[in-house]
Amino acid sequence: MANPILIEVTRGPLVESCHRGAIAISAPSGALALRIGDVDSPVYPRSAVKSLQAIPLIESGAADHYGFGPAEIALACGSHIGSERHTALAAAMLERAGLSEAALGCGAHQPLSPVEARALSEAHHAPTQLHNNCSGKHAGMLATAVHLGEPTSGYWQPDHPVQQRVHDVLAEISGVPLGAEVQGTDGCSVPNWAMPLKVLAATFARLVTGEGLKPERAEAVRRILEACWANPDLVAGKGRADTVVMRALPGQIFMKTGAEGVYCGAFPEFGLGFALKIDDGAKRATAGATMALIERFLPAARGLMPLSAIKTWRGVEVGTIRSSSKLEDELAGLKV
Amino acid sequence: MANPILIEVTRGPLVESCHRGAIAISAPSGALALRIGDVDSPVYPRSAVKSLQAIPLIESGAADHYGFGPAEIALACGSHIGSERHTALAAAMLERAGLSEAALGCGAHQPLSPVEARALSEAHHAPTQLHNNCSGKHAGMLATAVHLGEPTSGYWQPDHPVQQRVHDVLAEISGVPLGAEVQGTDGCSVPNWAMPLKVLAATFARLVTGEGLKPERAEAVRRILEACWANPDLVAGKGRADTVVMRALPGQIFMKTGAEGVYCGAFPEFGLGFALKIDDGAKRATAGATMALIERFLPAARGLMPLSAIKTWRGVEVGTIRSSSKLEDELAGLKV
Repeated sequence: MANPILIEVTRGPLVESCHRGAIAISAPSGALALRIGDVDSPVYPRSAVKSLQAIPLIESGAADHYGFGPAEIALACGSHIGSERHTALAAAMLERAGLSEAALGCGAHQPLSPVEARALSEAHHAPTQLHNNCSGKHAGMLATAVHLGEPTSGYWQPDHPVQQRVHDVLAEISGVPLGAEVQGTDGCSVPNWAMPLKVLAATFARLVTGEGLKPERAEAVRRILEACWANPDLVAGKGRADTVVMRALPGQIFMKTGAEGVYCGAFPEFGLGFALKIDDGAKRATAGATMALIERFLPAARGLMPLSAIKTWRGVEVGTIRSSSKLEDELAGLKV
Repeated sequence: MANPILIEVTRGPLVESCHRGAIAISAPSGALALRIGDVDSPVYPRSAVKSLQAIPLIESGAADHYGFGPAEIALACGSHIGSERHTALAAAMLERAGLSEAALGCGAHQPLSPVEARALSEAHHAPTQLHNNCSGKHAGMLATAVHLGEPTSGYWQPDHPVQQRVHDVLAEISGVPLGAEVQGTDGCSVPNWAMPLKVLAATFARLVTGEGLKPERAEAVRRILEACWANPDLVAGKGRADTVVMRALPGQIFMKTGAEGVYCGAFPEFGLGFALKIDDGAKRATAGATMALIERFLPAARGLMPLSAIKTWRGVEVGTIRSSSKLEDELAGLKV
């Protein structure tokens, strides 16, 4: 059965396009507070699990060894927009581990921010691997390898100890086996394991509550969350939802977007995690549906990231991006 | 009922994202050769009907008066990528009508082509309205207004004679009423009227066969089609499907993409038109599904626009964009 329509895009009197998807909201136990659509089939979380991928950086002692504070840890959990501040910090992390941009395996791409991309073009510079939105994560992975005396070459491959530790952390916290049948490769070349949305939602509930985590891990996770709340700019960048919302409501929500329409997050005060996937991967729908969900739990989030209007190139509004009545009804029915 | 999945995006062993949509293939009579999904609800054709929007430019005598040949007519039908060649030709069209870029109402946007956009940034130039992919269409509309002694101001508004003529041409050829209940505003500020895919498919079949058109209109349409086949670069630009496929197979296919997942076209030798809409508006799915359809009719189109692979930023293929088995089965069942 098709997932329901979560977001509608209108133009004039008609719905022009629509986006289907699924949402799970879960307690740490796995008890679901909400399920919309298929929350049982595996979904690649992509960058939404960067906070989990950063756990070995803390647990290995590498972060302490190289003096990585909240800023460096936040960047390791982030999908940054490629500004000078982000690239400089990623470079500094590599330098402290005795490495340079050349050690990265994430590949280069234009800065996620069109403004930063344009600035780079205007300066006649090509993007480097430091501009890759994942360069902080990769710098953290490399630092961990160096700290533990492991080879840095091929650190992105599934059989490298760096990725095996990430695999084990994900499997342990999620409680599901993550075998070859759910293993894909992310755009930045590291493995990514697909999990049901209901599992991702419970996993994020565990992160913010510490429930089901051994004490050292709960402490490492706490340090990661606090780092992101203290440095929301480094988790994403100017104008991005993760940055805007966590800056306004630190400690009240942890959230992280992933490619192809994924969002994961959790509400510490409610002891609930959420995971969302837009079937078609559209960013406009991912952001819209996630903000509708967040605003249901945290009314103070209203207006922080207004749904985009559909405008002409002269700036006249001719349509809207809006929650479907199905999504509104489901969220209204939630006990909050 | 949900439209079927037409395109799947895989990563590793799993389908990561999918795109639903609907397709109609029709004879000029409206007899359907294929219907997939909902072909009865109105869909905004957006830029896919630029060839129809250009008919008054010919029928009014404006094209002849200003010496617009196949190149100018093709640009009026095109969604160009904003290269120097495209912007210069649009500027020349305006100049012949005694106007300049300032008369345009389409608004400015970065060139559609990332290469052209980067070149503009590197030259420290902001995009002008000439870079708008619709500037050729707008130059043609303005030339028509000047030729007929109409005001140029507000030529984009629904009640201006320029748009009323476009409305009447669309309503006459499609055979359906196009009232306020299906009238939206396109990104370039002109009105756009939604029609069922089955109607759009029949409309495009009429364009390439001339069936049901009065002789003068059939002649004007023929001139438009020949102009596009002679100048496929001006209909879109380097690397774009409309350009690549019509350059390889002029006279065998007419095709035009529209925003939000629309494609329309026709096969003169088969006397059939097609119209397709991806529900979520994703370009990657629109192009993929359209090429699968075209290749079924024209095997020579195979390989012209291969479906994009999903690659890491280091260029390693880690997934595919492919037709769904539903789309493949439906196309295989077509009598061609």
